[in-house]
Amino acid sequence: MREMKVNADSHAYPVYVGENLRFQVGRLLKEDYSSILIISDTTVGELYLEDIMSGINHPHIFHTLVPAGEASKNIEQFYEVHTKAIEYGLDRHSLIIALGGGVIGDLAGFVAATYMRGVDYVQIPTTILAHDSSVGGKVAVNHHLGKNLIGNFYPPKAVIYDVQTLESLDAKQVRSGYAELVKEAFIGDDQFLQQLLDIQLNDINSSQLIEHLYNGIHIKASIVEQDEKEAGIRKYLNLGHTLGHALEAEAGYGRIAHGEAVAIGILFALYVSEKEYGINLPYQQLLGWLHLNGYPLNISGAAPEALIRRMKSDKKNIGSRIQMILLQSPGNVTTKEINEELLTDYLTTFKRKLV
Amino acid sequence: MREMKVNADSHAYPVYVGENLRFQVGRLLKEDYSSILIISDTTVGELYLEDIMSGINHPHIFHTLVPAGEASKNIEQFYEVHTKAIEYGLDRHSLIIALGGGVIGDLAGFVAATYMRGVDYVQIPTTILAHDSSVGGKVAVNHHLGKNLIGNFYPPKAVIYDVQTLESLDAKQVRSGYAELVKEAFIGDDQFLQQLLDIQLNDINSSQLIEHLYNGIHIKASIVEQDEKEAGIRKYLNLGHTLGHALEAEAGYGRIAHGEAVAIGILFALYVSEKEYGINLPYQQLLGWLHLNGYPLNISGAAPEALIRRMKSDKKNIGSRIQMILLQSPGNVTTKEINEELLTDYLTTFKRKLV
Repeated sequence: MREMKVNADSHAYPVYVGENLRFQVGRLLKEDYSSILIISDTTVGELYLEDIMSGINHPHIFHTLVPAGEASKNIEQFYEVHTKAIEYGLDRHSLIIALGGGVIGDLAGFVAATYMRGVDYVQIPTTILAHDSSVGGKVAVNHHLGKNLIGNFYPPKAVIYDVQTLESLDAKQVRSGYAELVKEAFIGDDQFLQQLLDIQLNDINSSQLIEHLYNGIHIKASIVEQDEKEAGIRKYLNLGHTLGHALEAEAGYGRIAHGEAVAIGILFALYVSEKEYGINLPYQQLLGWLHLNGYPLNISGAAPEALIRRMKSDKKNIGSRIQMILLQSPGNVTTKEINEELLTDYLTTFKRKLV
Repeated sequence: MREMKVNADSHAYPVYVGENLRFQVGRLLKEDYSSILIISDTTVGELYLEDIMSGINHPHIFHTLVPAGEASKNIEQFYEVHTKAIEYGLDRHSLIIALGGGVIGDLAGFVAATYMRGVDYVQIPTTILAHDSSVGGKVAVNHHLGKNLIGNFYPPKAVIYDVQTLESLDAKQVRSGYAELVKEAFIGDDQFLQQLLDIQLNDINSSQLIEHLYNGIHIKASIVEQDEKEAGIRKYLNLGHTLGHALEAEAGYGRIAHGEAVAIGILFALYVSEKEYGINLPYQQLLGWLHLNGYPLNISGAAPEALIRRMKSDKKNIGSRIQMILLQSPGNVTTKEINEELLTDYLTTFKRKLV
């Protein structure tokens, strides 16, 4: 097991990454709670709920399952989970456990942040993608007009990552998760980046996975510690997300995996960075790696105008001018406002290159 | 104008109490914002929205009105106001202004706390009651199973209190607001308590009102500064609220004014305190003052069992045991667990005394 400490503004919390941790949650909890509510989805619940329960010895432990998928990250499910928490008698000294991928982490985290104005919660991510969302305290539900528009900054009390739960992921989910690892590597660690771009995703073992997740979380944590509320450099973690979110929204949430959309977004950020700064970035190397690992790259169905409309409602914008996260070199991130006309040109030529 | 500074965990903010302040909001704002959304209700909006707008010179200022009344403090209105904020193009550098009583303050504050994970907001309370809720950062909406169950701790950037807006209040609203002032006086300032119990509510002038609000807010602020997240002494501010909330819920929110319910709750807390500690408290003096000022005191319609069921779901409880806030003397507050059987006795005899 590998372990690190993340220093949030309000408190420090441990991140554990290792094997068999899903049976040891009770042992890893540092406080006593009056009751515990495990929130999961129907898919993950069937696979791992019993394992988690078997490792916690508590007289008042409850669970509630929401339908699997992004569609559950809405205000109705949010309210419904609150109803369960009230009905089970949770009080201010209760614990919520988020067992699942990013959807569950964001939804259960936001319930924890708002239940009686805030109770403790622990993240137990069960996807590679969720290594990103489980650390840093961003919790939210979607609004029908945009992703993650209703939420809080509310860090967990612990993140417990059992890599064995990742064995049940399909190839699409592995691709989705590794896109965020590649993003972190571009932002923070060139050696880690080269290591990632040398591997094939269908050929990773448990100890590599622990190492990659640990490295990715480490980069993320070091940024979040400096800027928890995203007033400055935390924005950099949105590399690839300006276009990524727009592609997801255009396709309909859940149709394209989040990380697959982000992968195209990172590639586009490299493309725009090369044009804007007249530099060379590992665009071709990334493109080759994405091809090799089966990332879907055809976005010919998405109209630039529609994408730009989506990009304008991005939370990182000031007013409705589009701010892109760009690279001046790997590890050297910046933000730049790109006007709509130029962005339309970039999107049009970029799309053509991909087909 | 009187002014004080409140030190929240995240930032310090000013509270202004005076006359004509509703025309000076722009001048009192300390930061530049990309856009401003005023959230109010249909009643208050008609009276003061124009005054507020006239004092703010900003190219992007919007407003949205919700129906007046406690029923608006629900998840649907919360979501609807988010929709407006998105449609008006608010970004992370926007300001929300809560113009109204406690319902608006709590609802708009919770929207501000969660819109894109948090934007600044300013409280402009227009009821006496809201002197309490506008300071201290508690924001929330109601769940159909209980009051204020979904919310955050999220302090405002300023509180701007124009006592002239209180001239439009009816006698019931004045009673409701003064009950919370009496509560604060019982907790923190015996001299202020005697001053309040000497006045007649239909005979207050503007400078008295400013003085009373200032004193009440001062007591509240000094407690909140020590315990923002209600881990300890902030609980004391719930004096009278254990029974008060139960009475409100039993009557149906909005049927009985919040402060009128709290007034009965304070009286009950004095009654129980005298019994539990064998002491004398100004029970008769408070009862006389409540009678003199027309507070409704007949609760014969509420069954003790129903009230106790409501009291058990109070957020301050540990598990489902009922914790009451009691006085050992004025200014000397404590909490005590009272078992159901004894509480039923107390409620039964107390009800009988009131009729």
